[in-house]
Parts: sequence; structure tokens; C-alpha cells
Amino acid sequence: MSELFERHRARLDKAIDACEKRYSWTAFTESPSSKVHGKDIPAAARVAFDELLGKPFDIDMPATTSSVGEEVSPFTEIPLGISYPRVDIDKLFESAKRAQASWCLQTTEERVGLCLEILDRLAEPASLFLNAHATVHTAGQSFIMAFAGCGANALDRGLEALAYAYRAMKDVPETAHWERRFGAAAETHLEKRYRLIPRGTSVVITCATFPQWNGYPAILASLSTGNPVIVKPHPKTTLPVALFVRTMRKVLAKYGHDPNLVTMAADTRNDPVTIELLHHPGTAIIDFTGGPQFGRWIEENCPNALVYTETAGCNSVVIESTDDFSGMCDAIAQSLCQASAQMCTSVQNIFVPESGIETDIGHVSLDEVCIGLVASVDKLIAEPRKAAFLCGTLVDENIYRTIEAMTVAVAGSGDVLRESAPYTHPEFERARTATPLMLKVNAADKELYGKEHFGPISFVIAARDADHALQRATEDVRDHGAITSHVYSTNEQFVERAEHAYHMAGASLACNLTGMPINFAAAYSDFHVTGLNPAGNACLSDLAFVTSRFRIVQTKFPAIAQTG
Amino acid sequence: MSELFERHRARLDKAIDACEKRYSWTAFTESPSSKVHGKDIPAAARVAFDELLGKPFDIDMPATTSSVGEEVSPFTEIPLGISYPRVDIDKLFESAKRAQASWCLQTTEERVGLCLEILDRLAEPASLFLNAHATVHTAGQSFIMAFAGCGANALDRGLEALAYAYRAMKDVPETAHWERRFGAAAETHLEKRYRLIPRGTSVVITCATFPQWNGYPAILASLSTGNPVIVKPHPKTTLPVALFVRTMRKVLAKYGHDPNLVTMAADTRNDPVTIELLHHPGTAIIDFTGGPQFGRWIEENCPNALVYTETAGCNSVVIESTDDFSGMCDAIAQSLCQASAQMCTSVQNIFVPESGIETDIGHVSLDEVCIGLVASVDKLIAEPRKAAFLCGTLVDENIYRTIEAMTVAVAGSGDVLRESAPYTHPEFERARTATPLMLKVNAADKELYGKEHFGPISFVIAARDADHALQRATEDVRDHGAITSHVYSTNEQFVERAEHAYHMAGASLACNLTGMPINFAAAYSDFHVTGLNPAGNACLSDLAFVTSRFRIVQTKFPAIAQTG
Repeated sequence: MSELFERHRARLDKAIDACEKRYSWTAFTESPSSKVHGKDIPAAARVAFDELLGKPFDIDMPATTSSVGEEVSPFTEIPLGISYPRVDIDKLFESAKRAQASWCLQTTEERVGLCLEILDRLAEPASLFLNAHATVHTAGQSFIMAFAGCGANALDRGLEALAYAYRAMKDVPETAHWERRFGAAAETHLEKRYRLIPRGTSVVITCATFPQWNGYPAILASLSTGNPVIVKPHPKTTLPVALFVRTMRKVLAKYGHDPNLVTMAADTRNDPVTIELLHHPGTAIIDFTGGPQFGRWIEENCPNALVYTETAGCNSVVIESTDDFSGMCDAIAQSLCQASAQMCTSVQNIFVPESGIETDIGHVSLDEVCIGLVASVDKLIAEPRKAAFLCGTLVDENIYRTIEAMTVAVAGSGDVLRESAPYTHPEFERARTATPLMLKVNAADKELYGKEHFGPISFVIAARDADHALQRATEDVRDHGAITSHVYSTNEQFVERAEHAYHMAGASLACNLTGMPINFAAAYSDFHVTGLNPAGNACLSDLAFVTSRFRIVQTKFPAIAQTG
Repeated sequence: MSELFERHRARLDKAIDACEKRYSWTAFTESPSSKVHGKDIPAAARVAFDELLGKPFDIDMPATTSSVGEEVSPFTEIPLGISYPRVDIDKLFESAKRAQASWCLQTTEERVGLCLEILDRLAEPASLFLNAHATVHTAGQSFIMAFAGCGANALDRGLEALAYAYRAMKDVPETAHWERRFGAAAETHLEKRYRLIPRGTSVVITCATFPQWNGYPAILASLSTGNPVIVKPHPKTTLPVALFVRTMRKVLAKYGHDPNLVTMAADTRNDPVTIELLHHPGTAIIDFTGGPQFGRWIEENCPNALVYTETAGCNSVVIESTDDFSGMCDAIAQSLCQASAQMCTSVQNIFVPESGIETDIGHVSLDEVCIGLVASVDKLIAEPRKAAFLCGTLVDENIYRTIEAMTVAVAGSGDVLRESAPYTHPEFERARTATPLMLKVNAADKELYGKEHFGPISFVIAARDADHALQRATEDVRDHGAITSHVYSTNEQFVERAEHAYHMAGASLACNLTGMPINFAAAYSDFHVTGLNPAGNACLSDLAFVTSRFRIVQTKFPAIAQTG
């Protein structure tokens, strides 16, 4: 039995139990508080981050031909000046294939133990703090979000996928004894051996905003089942990926495995390697996180590989009534602000009956709902420190253009409820910030709201009534996808209809959530992405996410009869 | 809890246990012996079969437009004269979609219980005997093979898939309680409900030779997970499919479900509906059994659906040495004869070192190996009754042309070891029969043996030595696929090398099998098809065969705190 597996076994067992019962649990530390970590480790991580800037990233990568690097901090608008190896793709695949040869002969426990050790090393406080700084200055998140969301929360998602992979592999026994009589012949006794074989090289394409959250599950699901992994980071957000790839390679090498089981193919926006990776004959598995258009293209054009996508959709809220009007407004407002609505779980389309809604404070008109939502947003970000904490920055300067364009576009048919403007970041004066743009439109204005607008852009949409709202929202799920959907209603029959309508449209539903960040998707408990609508074809994580990443071969041979 | 589920639960539990431990077990009756069934049921089934001939098949099918039917008995060469509904494909999909709406709201136990009942009804002796006659006079199998292989063995494969589907579905809990604190806010308590949603309409394309063996697993895996199923039978072998589809529809209707959950789209060779089915926007899942070329085409051209294929390959034997020369020759010979080598597990390519092999009767030259194999074949089919029992008939008259063509083709570079000729069937004088054609070629003659020749055509291939044989055989696995592979060797090191080489080529291996039908693939024990080579992308059955046929959606809502 693998020493690493034994060392981390309790954590794996707990993760398996949590996946089975789906209660709340985390294996890692969400808080960056100095009460937990002291002051030395955070300070050292800050120094370590600064030392990364302006030079080649210290990582050994096979098949290196030159270097690339074009990251710019969304907080300082200063280039990071870090360069990464640019690699020869054919040679990279050769090195992956060589690495697979011995890796796939390891026991399941050896591979899973190694992956557990990787998670444990990534969860070291020094690693979590450095990872957070790297995420802040690439993905543009606030430090707290980068520390928790791209730290513990992402590690939990990785552990969750690993738990499923382990269970799927252990579902196949190692040996069996088999005996039967064929006709008049003597009884046949066979011994059978079963062996798991990886599918082949796994290409993981990470996104600009949350590379760890989807990256860890995909990488660990593939690696634990025997496949080498090539990670293709977004050119805007390469540093966090380079850091975790380096850690993974170090752990592999330390325990005597080929570090080329995990490699990185960095590129630039003008000279991308993505298509070459996707269509390479060595590619057996593709995990993609990013925009829906490219995700759909991959789903339709890569029959050479297993394809797992998570993209984005038109996340909606249908408001029918509420017994906590201010709590509801605050909850929705938080979704509109959090990470500048650049999360895959951020709300965009808020459907409200044109005649208004019944609430705990009496009847509230549509206009009053709008006022309430705007007031909640204003309240949340009134203080620059809180705005910075909640909104972070924009990962992409093009979002400013979308905000401008939508502000203009709505003029003919709708209203601007709340203009977007930069907020003043208390620490970084050049931070690329934008507060939520909130628009009011009619249900008929599908050309405005009927697609994903990446960034802090949302719509309050006047529907004829609540059922019309529901019908419109779930139609958008079918046409454009959804990762989260919300309904607010005190009417049990309506909630039931809403649940049915969203489920039949292939979406999960959250009802009447208040007093918590409604964007939060919990590892071990929430099945993230249904795979039933255009926002992605794969769930992180379930059995389907892992069971096809390996295959089963067997050997049978004559055996002597077993007794008893 | 479903009444049907409770009724059949012990059988399901046993199947789950058998899958887990992979011992020998069957839930059904393999023997057609009158000692088991008496004489009345077999006689009645014979009459029932005769009554089917020459008239429209009595089945109610939605969207019927006309009728088709072109089956000819390979035993009598007389058309069966049975016609089946030809359906409007768009309307068929509409009826499937309607049927799904209520089916997917049933509990897992209700759906699985219904599927268990279907198996139980198909396993009734009257059904097994009628199914056997129908299979004899379409697929051309001997009665005994049709009764066992297309009866109990196929039902076991169906039950196996159902066991996996049930386990995969039960892996998702129905509810969960979740609680945590976000920052300084009050503790959040959520109740979560999880619901399984089917992928959508499942198209199952069955083959001419063994429609039940792959059909049952695919249909039951899809149906139990909530998907409606459209079965597309081969025009040569529609009757057995029509029979089981009718039974499935009857069981569905009897228990209050929409019979259009299982429908059949019969067609003709000149006017096939296959492509229309495969590319229909309503198609979410495709299960295909048939030729490797079309299978590959489907894998590459149907990104609209989940695709599961089982096709065929160059099944090989590598002979290095043996301690049971006559047993080995008999075992291989049986594979060459059984069902006229029209099974997906039939051996085609027998690699032998040109210098001969060491055996229990001393050194045996290559020519003597050939003589031994031919003698074993001759012995097996010497008596017409035994030949009929073992070989059955040819499903396709084109196989005669392949036999002729290969007999001619080998003239330049190889030898005919054994000519193929019809044998005289003791019961049906016009039976379409052929004994094994056995050819001897050199390892270099890849253009002759390096692809699947469907039917009783095999090659003894002279290799430089055993390792060369192994290298050639496993190269063929990579290039052309394999469903079964055999090695005969008393040399442990060689067996180890062979196991490694076949496994790394993505093939399973059987070592030194004698005294049993080596074509036999055991439900609950043998993972049939690896999915790692060109002979198919799916295994019947494993978790990967079932886990993607459904998806998970959830609902979460505030809950009061749980205690304890």
C-alpha cells in the first residue's frame, strides 16, 4: 500500500463520505486571517510574489523552444513581466506518452496517494498565500476571494473529483475466480485479473477568471486515473497555473515519478496553441472552461477525444413574491457585485411581474423592486474598502466596452436603472474597476438580455406575470444555458412549477436564498453544471465526470478449483 | 416503493453482487432441454413461430406510414413474409419525447422494477423458445445457440447493465441537509433535493447476428435511467427485435406507462433510416453494434449524442508453446466453427513461429500445427448433426463471395490449409452453410489477414518467432481492433510479455484456455469490449456505460436547523 495514500487516507475517506451524504465540509482553510496563519507566512508570500515579477518563471518544462508572457495586473495595469516556456507541442505529447507508460502501471492507491499529496502541498499556507497574490494580479479578484475561492474552495473541488475517481476505480476488483460447466465437459475454473488503463493524454484548458476551480478537478480526475495532463492556461492568467503545475511536478519528481505527467503549454492571445492541442492525435481527453461559443465548437469538433466543458449561460432570477424583501434584494445585489459578476454563478437576468410582487412589506411595484435592488447594490459598495473586497477588478478591459455598448443599446426600449462607473480602489489607484450596470427592459427585448454579457451587467426584465417570467427564463436556459437559477416566491404551487420548469429545462434551482452569498457552489454537495443545457456538458463532479477517463482490460487463465 | 422492484429485488441484488465480485452466475435458463421445460411449451412455441410467417407482425407502433419486411431464412432460403410498421421518424421522436415526460418523473425503483419485469417476461420459457426460432430463421444460428446465446446469455447482459444503472443512480442521494456560516452572518441551513434527468431519446442500432446480446444492455441502460428508446433492427434480423420490443411495450402498458418508451424503426437495405435517426435533433444517445467502418463513422460524425459502439476486429491467437497440444487445437478449432465464426469473439488470425513450438508431445513444426488445427476442425464437424449444432448458417450470402475471393487471393503467397464447402444440414437441405476456410500465410501478408473478414475465414500466420507474432498481433489490435485475444504458452515470461503487450494495445487477453468454448464472454465477469481499440468505444457493461445516460439537477432552499 502506498505510503502517501495511507498518510492522507482519512481525508479521502471523509471526502467520499461527504460526496455520498452531501453535507457541508471543507478539508482546507478558507480564511487568510493572521489569527490562523500568523504574520510571517503572509509576509513571506508577499515577498515571494514580488520576486516572481519581471523575470522568467522558474519551471523546467520539456520541449521548450522559446518563452511567452503577457500578463498585466488588473490592479496596477502594469505588466507582470513574467515569462513562461513556450513548448514544442509534438514533443510535449511525446514526453506525456513516455510518462504515462510507467504511471499507468502504478496501483490506484499509489496514484491517488500522490494526488492527495499534491492537494496537501497546494494547501500549505505559503502556497495558498502565494496563489492568492498570483490570482489577484492576473484574474483580478480581491485578495479574500482569491484566497478562499481559488484556494480552499478549489482544492475541495479537486478532492471531490479525486474521491469520485477513487471510488470508480475501486469499483473494479483486481481479481476474480470463475467456474462453470459447459455441457458435458469438466468444470472450467478460471482466474481473472482486471487492470485499469488510462485513456491517454488529457488536455485541460483553464479560464482567465477561476483557473483552479475547474483546473484541479479535471487534472486530478485525469491524473489519478493514469493519464498525463497538459494544462493550457489562459494567457491573461498563466501565473496561478504555472505555480500549481510546478508544485505538481515537484511532488511527482520527489516520489520518483516522471514530472512530465503534468506539463503546461503557455501561449499568447495572438499565437494560441489551443487548436493544435485539441486536434493533436495524442489528445484523448479534453477539459475546457471558458466561453460558450468556443465550448460549443469543441463539443462539436473534437470527436477524437472525450470532451468535458463548463462555459456560461444566462443565469436568471424569477421573482414571484417574497417574505423578506430587503433580504432578497441584498442577496441578489451581492451576486451582481461579487467578483464584478465574472463568476459562472453570477446572476444576470432578473424577471419581475410588471404588476409587481407581494412581500413582507406589502405590495411592491416593479419600479419599487428596481429601486430596492439598486439601493442594495449601492449600499454594498458604498465604502470603497467594501467595494474592493466584494467586486475586485475586471479581468478584461473589453468589459468596459460591453458596459458602454449596453448602456447605449438599452436607450430605445429600456432604462438604465444604475450606471456603471469605476470605484476608487483604496489600495491600487489604477485598478480596473466597474460597479454594476443595471438595466430595465421588457420580456420582449430578448436581443438585449438573451445572451451572456460577461461582467457586471444585469437586467431587470418586466414580464406579464410570474408564469410568463418563468417561461421566458427557462426558455433562455434551453437556448443559452444556465449554471445557476433562482426563484423567490412564498407560493408553494409556484415554487413547485418553477422547480419543474427549471429541471425540465436542464437547470438546477435555488429557492428563496437570503443571508448568504447566493453564487456559492459547495463542493461535495452541489452538483456544479448539469450538462443538460448549453452552459456545459459536464458536471463537477459526479461519477460521469470520472468513469470514462479510464478503461478496463482483463486477463483470464485456467485455475485450480477453489474450495469454500 | 415499486411493487415490481420489490418482486424482483433479490435478482437485482444478486446481479449487483456478481458484478462486484465477478463470479460465474446466471439468472436465467440456458438449456432448451425438455427435461427442464417439458414438451408442450416448445411445441407451442414452434406453432407460434409458424403463425408469424407470411403476415403483418402484430405490433402497434406510433406514426406508422406503411410496412417493410425482407427477411429470408438462412435455413430454408424462403422469405419469412413478415411485414413490420414503417414509421414517420419525426413523429416517432415526438411520441418518444411525450413518453419521456412522465417516465422521467417516476422513481428509480419504479423504472428499474419495470425493467426487471421486462427481463422476467422475456425469460419465460414460451418467450425464450419463440425468440430462439425467430433468431434461427433470421440470424441463422443453430437452435441451441439461439436459445442460450440470444436467450439467457443476452438477458444476463441486460440484467448486468441494469445492475450498473441502478447503482449509478442510487449513488446520488435524494436529499441532503447542509449548513455553514459565511463570515459574520448567521448560520445558513439549506435543504437540498437531487433529481435524475434523462439525456433524451436513445437510438439503439442492433446487428444482424446477435441483436439481443447488445440490444438488451443498451435498451435497459437507457430506459432505466429515464430515456425513451427507439430500436433500429437490421433488415435481415428484425423479427427477434420486433418480438422483444412488443414484450417491452406490453409490460410498459400493463403497468400504466406509455408504451412509446420503446419503439422500433424497421427499414430495408435499400431505403435505410439509420442516418436520419442518428442525426435527428431529438437523438441524445446512440448505441451501435455492427461493422467497424460504420461504427467509426458514427464515432466521428455524431457529436450531437453520446455514442457507444461495439464493432469487430482482428481477433488473434499467439501460439508460443503448449502443454496440451490437442486441447489447444480443439479449443481454437471450436472458435473457428462456432456460429460460422460470425461472433464478435471469433478468432481469425493464428500466429505461429515458423520454427514451430514446444508441446506436451514434443516439438511440433509449423506445418504440424496447421495439420493439428485442421484435424480438430474436421473432427468437430465430421457429423452433419454436430456441424449443424456448432456452425449454424451464414447470416449473409455475401460471405460465400468473401470465401471465394480469399481462396483465390491467397494463391500467390500462401496456402489453402482447408477449403470451405457447404455441409449438409440434417434438417434443412437448402441451409446456407459453409465450413471453415483455413489459410496459411506469412506475417508479411498483412493485406490478406490485416482486417476483419466476417465469416468462417481464418489464417495461420507464420511469424519469425513468438515475440514477432506478439508484435504483429498487437499491432493489428491497435490498427484494426480486437474483442478477444488469446495466447498459448507454458513460458511464464512470455505470458507476462504477452499480457503487457495486449493490455498496452488496449486488448484483454485469455491465456491457455482449453476444454471450454473460448468465444464465451461471461456476463457479470468479463468486461466485454475495452473501448481502447478500434473494435468499439464502449464496454458492456461497466459504470462508464451507464453514468452519462442521465444527469443530475438539484433544488436548494432554506431549512430550519437540524439537531443531532
